[in-house]
Amino acid sequence: MKLCMIGARGHSYYVLNDLPELEDVKLCAVASGDENPSSLLQTAKTWDPRSYDDWREMLDKETPDVLSIDGPFELHAEMCVEALNRNIHVFCEKPIALTLSDLERIREAYEKSEAEIISMTALRWEPAFYTAHQLVRAGKIGKVMLIQTRKSYKMRIRPDFYKRRATYGGTIGWVGSHAIDWIQWFSGSTFASAAATQTRAENRGNGEMETAAQCLFTMKNGVLAQASIDFLRSEGAPTHGDDRIRVVGTEGAVEVELGRLFLTDEAGYREITELKSPGRGFFASFIDFIEGKGAPPASPEETFETTRACLKTQQAADEHNIQVF
Amino acid sequence: MKLCMIGARGHSYYVLNDLPELEDVKLCAVASGDENPSSLLQTAKTWDPRSYDDWREMLDKETPDVLSIDGPFELHAEMCVEALNRNIHVFCEKPIALTLSDLERIREAYEKSEAEIISMTALRWEPAFYTAHQLVRAGKIGKVMLIQTRKSYKMRIRPDFYKRRATYGGTIGWVGSHAIDWIQWFSGSTFASAAATQTRAENRGNGEMETAAQCLFTMKNGVLAQASIDFLRSEGAPTHGDDRIRVVGTEGAVEVELGRLFLTDEAGYREITELKSPGRGFFASFIDFIEGKGAPPASPEETFETTRACLKTQQAADEHNIQVF
Repeated sequence: MKLCMIGARGHSYYVLNDLPELEDVKLCAVASGDENPSSLLQTAKTWDPRSYDDWREMLDKETPDVLSIDGPFELHAEMCVEALNRNIHVFCEKPIALTLSDLERIREAYEKSEAEIISMTALRWEPAFYTAHQLVRAGKIGKVMLIQTRKSYKMRIRPDFYKRRATYGGTIGWVGSHAIDWIQWFSGSTFASAAATQTRAENRGNGEMETAAQCLFTMKNGVLAQASIDFLRSEGAPTHGDDRIRVVGTEGAVEVELGRLFLTDEAGYREITELKSPGRGFFASFIDFIEGKGAPPASPEETFETTRACLKTQQAADEHNIQVF
Repeated sequence: MKLCMIGARGHSYYVLNDLPELEDVKLCAVASGDENPSSLLQTAKTWDPRSYDDWREMLDKETPDVLSIDGPFELHAEMCVEALNRNIHVFCEKPIALTLSDLERIREAYEKSEAEIISMTALRWEPAFYTAHQLVRAGKIGKVMLIQTRKSYKMRIRPDFYKRRATYGGTIGWVGSHAIDWIQWFSGSTFASAAATQTRAENRGNGEMETAAQCLFTMKNGVLAQASIDFLRSEGAPTHGDDRIRVVGTEGAVEVELGRLFLTDEAGYREITELKSPGRGFFASFIDFIEGKGAPPASPEETFETTRACLKTQQAADEHNIQVF
């Protein structure tokens, strides 16, 4: 399998992390997708890929089987469509589109394509979250009723593309994709409605970037959910991010807090210290799926649904209304 | 000071808890407010109060200075109005009204009265919450930006009055009053808007009682807030309730979890083990306020605002819309 990569803004290191265990996959070439290719060339130098200034030229000349897309956010959709039109499998940074019309273009291309597409929502694969999901699927908390998620990041000094909605897309999609993906994953349902609030106050000169957002969801199967998203994590905090989830069912609850997993059920409240790992990287699992060797770590339909939910929720926050899906 | 009490459905034990330290306050009489006076007579027997079947007759004959109202929820408003019209100070179970028109009647009576009124939102006085509030007011987390609250209770077998909206008022007001009061208290602001979702699924035969609700708020000063409210706490959990709050500011965050307080700021993340107590009970602090000896533990204006926010949020959930205050 020939692999090409565009850009390294976000989570494309998942690809590089998994390459050593993927004997069938060869990294042939990289393109930056924007003005500066040095970052990706540097991180990928072990594999000595060819380098292109023009990503379309790379696709023309290399004819890859798989493409990692992690360049400018506002070009994700165009790159996805181009790859799918060429039957190239796509592993794309989330969100895969910044507008609903771009998302629709990707879906149309996908439906005509022989290739698969998933986004880099690999926080599903973190051991505490993965184990929590296994407990829920095993029925340990009964029927899922309520889900609350938290994504909190340090603000830090951000490159200019974060400062404009047109090149950033909004904090709900960029930070919140993971939280929204967890909700879909743990509820086992698609979204029915979304309301959201957001603020740009105290964003330390980051232009149009929202400092925080709060989201309220109903799912088609009746689950109620919330997501809390912010860039307000103190610089003194021990980790960059504070990722949490609370899933409450009719028989108990699982909570992930600071990488630890807690279960409440009829036997009481306790930490689950034996955390399980999927045993295979998120990108490697995608490759397995393409090769017909297993289920996808997140399906194309889930990728579309998470993206759509992010965009509709952003719209609800922008327009101060409730979006019915 | 002459004290009378109506009912013991909820938090009127605050009154009895504080009586021993209130030498000036004498419990003269009790009335049940509904069919069964045995519960209150039993808990108040130390003080050997007179007992009335008719609470109006009690007010006529005893002419109390202070009245505790904790009888049927749907009679709170009528009892508050009657007491305020007689210039009797009111300490009322939350929510003090089940409809916005009833709340307006209480406010009108209050404005013409010489008496004060507050509701029993005494979870402000729990040491972890009280200490968290002191840290926030002392500026330890900078400017408050984001507040998340959680109220989770065990469902248990509930008396019939929980099973009808007309006699219960709804889970957002009954369970959520505390959460909504914390938001007001920690934000230092009144409410600007509310959206909410709710479900009656899996309510174990409790009729119209909502199993869970999720609420989204904006405050007039720009703070964003959420409240999660549910009756889904597992019977196996170590406590009846799971009360939490997370308050995030520009410089850090405080979190109360299972009675413990955590602070994140530039110095890191740590538990604050020295929890402070107000040193005076919630009801005793209300008596001090009436006697001109201090600020109220929650003001009459805050009592009206919390009640209004509960009722508007319930309306948002019932009507699937956003309520602008």
